[in-house]
Amino acid sequence: MLFSRSVLRPPLDELDRLMREHAIDAVVVPLHETMHSAFRWMTRGANLTKGFAVRVAGRETLLIAYPMERDEAAASGLSWRGVADFDHDGIFRDAPDPPIAYGRFFDRILHDLHSGPRISIEGHAPLPLYLGIAHELEKLGWSVVRHAEDLIQLARKRKSDWEIAQIRSVGERTEQVIDGVREILRSRAGDLTIGDIKRFISAGIVRRGMIEDHETIVAQGRDAGVPHSRGDASAPFRESVPLVIDIFPADRATGYFFDLTRTFCVGPVPDELRRIHADVLDAFEKARDAMKPGTPASSYQTLVCNLFEARGYPTTRSNPGTTAGYVHALGHGVGLDLHERPSFSLAATNDDLVEVDDVLTIEPGLYFPDLDLGVRIEDTFVVREGGVETLCRGRYDLAP
Amino acid sequence: MLFSRSVLRPPLDELDRLMREHAIDAVVVPLHETMHSAFRWMTRGANLTKGFAVRVAGRETLLIAYPMERDEAAASGLSWRGVADFDHDGIFRDAPDPPIAYGRFFDRILHDLHSGPRISIEGHAPLPLYLGIAHELEKLGWSVVRHAEDLIQLARKRKSDWEIAQIRSVGERTEQVIDGVREILRSRAGDLTIGDIKRFISAGIVRRGMIEDHETIVAQGRDAGVPHSRGDASAPFRESVPLVIDIFPADRATGYFFDLTRTFCVGPVPDELRRIHADVLDAFEKARDAMKPGTPASSYQTLVCNLFEARGYPTTRSNPGTTAGYVHALGHGVGLDLHERPSFSLAATNDDLVEVDDVLTIEPGLYFPDLDLGVRIEDTFVVREGGVETLCRGRYDLAP
Repeated sequence: MLFSRSVLRPPLDELDRLMREHAIDAVVVPLHETMHSAFRWMTRGANLTKGFAVRVAGRETLLIAYPMERDEAAASGLSWRGVADFDHDGIFRDAPDPPIAYGRFFDRILHDLHSGPRISIEGHAPLPLYLGIAHELEKLGWSVVRHAEDLIQLARKRKSDWEIAQIRSVGERTEQVIDGVREILRSRAGDLTIGDIKRFISAGIVRRGMIEDHETIVAQGRDAGVPHSRGDASAPFRESVPLVIDIFPADRATGYFFDLTRTFCVGPVPDELRRIHADVLDAFEKARDAMKPGTPASSYQTLVCNLFEARGYPTTRSNPGTTAGYVHALGHGVGLDLHERPSFSLAATNDDLVEVDDVLTIEPGLYFPDLDLGVRIEDTFVVREGGVETLCRGRYDLAP
Repeated sequence: MLFSRSVLRPPLDELDRLMREHAIDAVVVPLHETMHSAFRWMTRGANLTKGFAVRVAGRETLLIAYPMERDEAAASGLSWRGVADFDHDGIFRDAPDPPIAYGRFFDRILHDLHSGPRISIEGHAPLPLYLGIAHELEKLGWSVVRHAEDLIQLARKRKSDWEIAQIRSVGERTEQVIDGVREILRSRAGDLTIGDIKRFISAGIVRRGMIEDHETIVAQGRDAGVPHSRGDASAPFRESVPLVIDIFPADRATGYFFDLTRTFCVGPVPDELRRIHADVLDAFEKARDAMKPGTPASSYQTLVCNLFEARGYPTTRSNPGTTAGYVHALGHGVGLDLHERPSFSLAATNDDLVEVDDVLTIEPGLYFPDLDLGVRIEDTFVVREGGVETLCRGRYDLAP
């Protein structure tokens, strides 16, 4: 779980820049049992169950830990201090309720670290508690900013070389799992249920040092026509209908995700499926070949909507609310969350750019659940100066 | 991931009671990528990546899902509606930023469901966004309560029979993993590193349909003397020092945790270790035999502090800040979070009772890192009318 100090230097610089831009004096990232990407990133994967990362502008990140977890705090390589340094027990003994106690505790920490008054509390944490804590901090004179999203989420958008190497490694292992799926589809498709394929994938993910944080999509026929349908484990595998496998494991140690989709068909391929697959692949290749850094991510959603609409397919742009045709965004960033920035949404508020060192998916699809059909093709890419570089092996054909 | 409708009836009744008691008109539980116990519990494990569970007083929980995940929403067995029913796309197209968009979207949902004005937003969700959403909802006339903790966390405290059965099943599989550890410690301790034991445990957890959400503690000697030290994987296993194994897997499908600790010693057992182990076991048995429903959980922390202090050990009650002796709380609730209510803390604000159908750990320990020593013994129990019933097999001796 340990990140080396050097490798996260560039994104932490980016956080400092964002803090200056947004006039934030300190970022506080709490962890309460449920690990989340902001804490993992800020602490380089510190293996705690509860604790607080605090970054005051112009200073190193400080990790604040409970005494039982002092070894894990030290192993993070970060500067760290125990909660006792900030009178945790005294504050919690005297405060009338937890939000007031945490408010006073954070007040004490921020004072001791000489933070300015504007602070941002970030990451995923228990809401009623933190609504109360923010209120208490404001009573104590701090200004808790309410903005659209974590600065950390923005800072995490462009990846360091080390992060790209981690994601590439998850990708290679993911391809190995898919190689295995191709093999069983070629050799014994007639004997398989969807559940067999799911179990084969789960075992392959675990064996390669990864976790299946979200259940893999193994969806055939009508289910393949509903993008996030996980598929019916009890159904026997069927020939001549599409099988969409959308797989998104994360490395067990570092937490970095990968995301890849292939659509297979065993047996005679219906003409309609062949045509739809060719159109999806065309959209995939055109978006991939067009994508350049410094351009709006939404422009590639526009590109693919234009392409599909010109060929007579409905899209959610042309037919809001449609569940047939092209019904989702072209892709998303990938990192410590499966879905992160940039966003490819056409919403007016989305001004995300595709930038060098973004890691992102391109994943057009066409869906016709009433026709027993759905096709999606997805690679994960890293954005370079000249365009996007796939982290996948290619081979997009329907034959496994 | 599917819970049957009937089995969660009692705790949802408890949530309704708590909503009345706290005069809450609606509870909103958002999910943004990072799964958390409140959403899992409210939706019976709905397999979404993003969505909202809304419970208006006196009504069934409504799940609100995005169109791509409509199959998974339907599979939850809950009432569900798509985001389009609440003009999601129109609202997000017109709003100037995400907090305002979500604020208007929740406003629309709550109006449509005829909710009263006092609402609680619960669970783990992105903080800056939800601080902004709460602010926006208040501008729109809603009162967003800031209280110490999720009502859902309170409602989850006492477990249904179905939940107890799930936890018992995780416990049986956890015992099987520990059986295997005993076996390799007996047969080939001389060849093992701590990392070998960790890998053996990880494989055993996965093979039995469980996940290792937090890294198992396999800590010997000095590391065993630091309660949450995960242990040094590269170190060879040593004889005549304690090996603390604290294992807390969760069922892969349902998310319920189990928690168990055993302390082993291979080879000649030093007198000091034998004495400390006997004292920990005595504290464990006395707390276990004394525990009755309807009593304050903190009273058992007092009981164990009294016992250890009478035998000359420092505790964090007698010596605040000590890292030697008895340095943590006696136990904690276990469920969809590894650590949940009741709390055994001596803090004045802790008035948690031990109640019938609580599932909780009892886990006294004594720690002397400077003496290369630490001992902890832990079972998970269910509270019955007459006392606590262990969900473990027993066998607490140092010999594996």
